[in-house]
Amino acid sequence: MATFSVPDHVPPVAEDCEKLRKAMQGWGTDENAIISILAHRNARQRCSIRQTYTEKYGEDLFNELEKELSGDFLRAMLVWTPHPAERDAMLAKEFATNKKSEGYFVIMEIGCTRTSQELFQVRQDYHARYKRSLEEDVSCGTSGDFRKLLVPLVTCYRYEPHDESVDTELVNSEAKILHDKISHKDYSHEEIIRILTTRSKPHLRATLQNYNDQFGHPINKDLKKHRKDEYLALLRATVKCLTCPEKYFEKTLRLSMKGIGTNEETLTRVVTTRAEVDMKHIMEQYQRKNNVSMDNDIKGDTSSDYRTMLLALIN
Amino acid sequence: MATFSVPDHVPPVAEDCEKLRKAMQGWGTDENAIISILAHRNARQRCSIRQTYTEKYGEDLFNELEKELSGDFLRAMLVWTPHPAERDAMLAKEFATNKKSEGYFVIMEIGCTRTSQELFQVRQDYHARYKRSLEEDVSCGTSGDFRKLLVPLVTCYRYEPHDESVDTELVNSEAKILHDKISHKDYSHEEIIRILTTRSKPHLRATLQNYNDQFGHPINKDLKKHRKDEYLALLRATVKCLTCPEKYFEKTLRLSMKGIGTNEETLTRVVTTRAEVDMKHIMEQYQRKNNVSMDNDIKGDTSSDYRTMLLALIN
Repeated sequence: MATFSVPDHVPPVAEDCEKLRKAMQGWGTDENAIISILAHRNARQRCSIRQTYTEKYGEDLFNELEKELSGDFLRAMLVWTPHPAERDAMLAKEFATNKKSEGYFVIMEIGCTRTSQELFQVRQDYHARYKRSLEEDVSCGTSGDFRKLLVPLVTCYRYEPHDESVDTELVNSEAKILHDKISHKDYSHEEIIRILTTRSKPHLRATLQNYNDQFGHPINKDLKKHRKDEYLALLRATVKCLTCPEKYFEKTLRLSMKGIGTNEETLTRVVTTRAEVDMKHIMEQYQRKNNVSMDNDIKGDTSSDYRTMLLALIN
Repeated sequence: MATFSVPDHVPPVAEDCEKLRKAMQGWGTDENAIISILAHRNARQRCSIRQTYTEKYGEDLFNELEKELSGDFLRAMLVWTPHPAERDAMLAKEFATNKKSEGYFVIMEIGCTRTSQELFQVRQDYHARYKRSLEEDVSCGTSGDFRKLLVPLVTCYRYEPHDESVDTELVNSEAKILHDKISHKDYSHEEIIRILTTRSKPHLRATLQNYNDQFGHPINKDLKKHRKDEYLALLRATVKCLTCPEKYFEKTLRLSMKGIGTNEETLTRVVTTRAEVDMKHIMEQYQRKNNVSMDNDIKGDTSSDYRTMLLALIN
């Protein structure tokens, strides 16, 4: 469930373009006008605006935004406005070769929480933009256990069944395989990777439920034995993203705003990538978990146009 | 370059369907009539025939062929007639879970010799037909080194540059990496897999040429030290398929007809999958290598309608 609102009567694209042009011309910039348009149009409408803007004024809207805006507000605008596949290709490029642990999480998010068709569109867009393949960069930018997990996550084309019916015998045997490998601390065993990166999501949900029933606790408890291990943290996050993404994103948002200071990069990424998808569920989860609304926390952690933009996307 | 011929004036689809229907009705079957139609229509035309046949007669053409034909001729017809993506999905399904070494080669062929877009279509068709993903079956049906190589080969979406220009520094360094791992007999090292399964074909051609220039002999010579090792044989075949597929297919065809007896399954697969693509190059290579034409060898190794069908596809 999306959270941002599109007006009942959307003005013609040309009119949106004229208002954007006006908001960016001359001295000063009318940030509110820009937000009132771009934060209230869906992906298809934003793509039309960008295209028409180029045709009308011979300038790329994104270059114009870069000239006029700055800081976190600019980044939020540039991440939000493109088509989701283009946005993901840009995020993946930024993080595929970024050897900080955050990069691993961004790549994993893209591999686990987009539909199979969406993920393939990201790969197509990656070819078009960067003249190389997504897996080429991900496998170059990683090694060892991280590579073993991340490359199949971004190259998979999971089957998406129309219902939740599963092969219970297979579910049972694969829950046992996972438990066996985890008991032997073989956390990057090829069978764990195979199951997590090729099975359909309903099959995985059933397998992990079966794991819980057979062994008395959730798989992520068994993967928590070495809290500081980065690969294990990524593996736990993968399990969450595949089976209950709203919980993963709630936690990611919570941590981005926790304590003193804010991780704006993460906050921007999660809000912009989920506003059109499942932000309503994430916000409900946030309220349940923290006894405070997410917009309240965002208000406290951000300011000015950046705050206005994020709030527009979640309301 | 394709080898089969489509007449200058192709009759209307309905007329083809009527002739096929007539050839299969009553006592006996007119095999020549079936060949004269299906072996002389391109993929798009064959798909139209199948669709129109179902609409006109309420029967699937493939079921009808199965009732009327048999043996190698039937198999050749059933492998040839579908759309290439559907055919590949069927071949992949048949061989993904077939633990004989031939299965590994079929999966590798599909992963290495189809264009990126074609390979993705195979994966889409696989979803539609089998309600699971290609990589799901390939990874279930393999393990160890075979799995490490084959899963990324069937999930890759290689970048396809418009020209042969490459990053010479990268080419040089990756040739060194390959040589280093091979020298240490680490034939399934993750870096060998990464390079072969993610790099573009022009980059790979340049890298293997550089390997030859730097180290004085082709990579496949270094991979031949243990001739009987099945994984090494698959790795050598992968290198050939990625860089000079006509040589790989020539050898595969030659071996399928060598000595007493014929491997009809292989002969059928290579002829039907390459007739519409690069069979002309394969036949030229065959002539160069064996000093005899391929049709001559096929004539000697096959008979009856099966022979007529194969010869129609390569002439």
